[in-house]
Amino acid sequence: MKIAFLGPAGTFGEMAALQYAPDAERVALPSHAGVVAAVGSGMADVAVLPVENSVEGSVSETLDILIHETDLRVRAELVVPVEQCLLVRPGMQAADVGVIYSHPQALGQCRGFLERCFPRARLEASLSTAGAVQEIFRHADAAAIASARAGDVHGAEVLARGIGDRKNNVTRFVVLAAQDAQPSGQDKTSIAFTTQHDRPGTLVRILNEFADAGLNLTRIESRPSKDQLGVYIFLVDFEGHRQEEAVAAVLDRVRAKASWLRVFGSYPRFAG
Amino acid sequence: MKIAFLGPAGTFGEMAALQYAPDAERVALPSHAGVVAAVGSGMADVAVLPVENSVEGSVSETLDILIHETDLRVRAELVVPVEQCLLVRPGMQAADVGVIYSHPQALGQCRGFLERCFPRARLEASLSTAGAVQEIFRHADAAAIASARAGDVHGAEVLARGIGDRKNNVTRFVVLAAQDAQPSGQDKTSIAFTTQHDRPGTLVRILNEFADAGLNLTRIESRPSKDQLGVYIFLVDFEGHRQEEAVAAVLDRVRAKASWLRVFGSYPRFAG
Repeated sequence: MKIAFLGPAGTFGEMAALQYAPDAERVALPSHAGVVAAVGSGMADVAVLPVENSVEGSVSETLDILIHETDLRVRAELVVPVEQCLLVRPGMQAADVGVIYSHPQALGQCRGFLERCFPRARLEASLSTAGAVQEIFRHADAAAIASARAGDVHGAEVLARGIGDRKNNVTRFVVLAAQDAQPSGQDKTSIAFTTQHDRPGTLVRILNEFADAGLNLTRIESRPSKDQLGVYIFLVDFEGHRQEEAVAAVLDRVRAKASWLRVFGSYPRFAG
Repeated sequence: MKIAFLGPAGTFGEMAALQYAPDAERVALPSHAGVVAAVGSGMADVAVLPVENSVEGSVSETLDILIHETDLRVRAELVVPVEQCLLVRPGMQAADVGVIYSHPQALGQCRGFLERCFPRARLEASLSTAGAVQEIFRHADAAAIASARAGDVHGAEVLARGIGDRKNNVTRFVVLAAQDAQPSGQDKTSIAFTTQHDRPGTLVRILNEFADAGLNLTRIESRPSKDQLGVYIFLVDFEGHRQEEAVAAVLDRVRAKASWLRVFGSYPRFAG
């Protein structure tokens, strides 16, 4: 099996790929859109994409790819701990750090640590955490924020670990493939739908279909339609498999009420 | 009146401040948290913060500040067009552009334009679009993506305008102050609440309160609780003012069903 992830080696996406299929061949792609295209074109069999972080919330780019750019199905979910580390060139000391590189989101996640421990260091943005690690070999006074695995891969040293401001920082990934999963008895289903925006009660009427059937919603999220402010696409995860009779009946009723419905797939609930 | 915004001069936040109160004294702060703190501490009377973009979706940082970090109320909303421009040093030509700086989000918004017109240019991240404009005066082959106003403020020239991949790109801002607004007859109210996460039907029961009272929901959004994956804070905007009798009755019923409820304020609907 070949598994596509957002590269380079050392990203949390690679850690998700390793967790899902330790023995699979890993294929690094340079963008989330590329990860999905790799499966569509046969370069890989499955793709891992982050959907949600416990601190930052939804990964909008993945949701938009699921909605707009792929027909692949969700066949699994997994949860990966996110532990940010401060990485330096081997042998470098904390006192030598003058500038710290990372993706703006990772810099934001570690703001408390940076203010307490490196109040005078300059912060510089990179396009990825892996790109930040490369900067430490270009500048004598540079450190980077990235995963410990990124440090291993690029030959950097961990100066401090667990430097994120929030504990319990985890990211939920989905595994995409041509087919979703067969029923396991402990499943979830992910869907997206739109409502007629001149009839605002429709969202509540649709959510009532799940409540009336006793299907627990585990998540509800909205994304902009991108055409007009105030018009949204709703994403809902709920317990149950689309092949179960009661679930199929609810999906039929939701389809009748919604302007548009897409079932991303049914898959076993992540059990840790 | 003094109005705080995310600086430096030339940001879309400054354009929102100008649109809300053209004659007010503008106070630039270096972070969204700083913008809010400026009002709390008396440096400014009101603050403008972006909450939602028609293409990118919610501005998570603002939602989290409203939920966790301030008691200020929402007293107005406004919608500002987002037009990204390619800025260069005066006199520089397109053929001279070797590297393009911007915040990763702005680079992402202009991906189609960059691939078509500058396929060989290197893309570099900055911590802000305004920071990107400063780079064009440091590097001979650099251009930046930012607003036309940022170009004016920093003495740059607009080489191309409207370079975002999506048209109708607008950002909705809220205006925060110690008090929300008096009823105007055409109002909206913004609230946040949590449900007991072991009782998943509660969200639907709460939304039904609005539907049963005929109050249109204009927006529903969720944010992570940050403590545990799968536990959310819901943000809802609906039509009506909290001082109207019917709205106050619904809020009482929602408060009884929710684990926690916060009313951010009532304010006139933006009419363009």
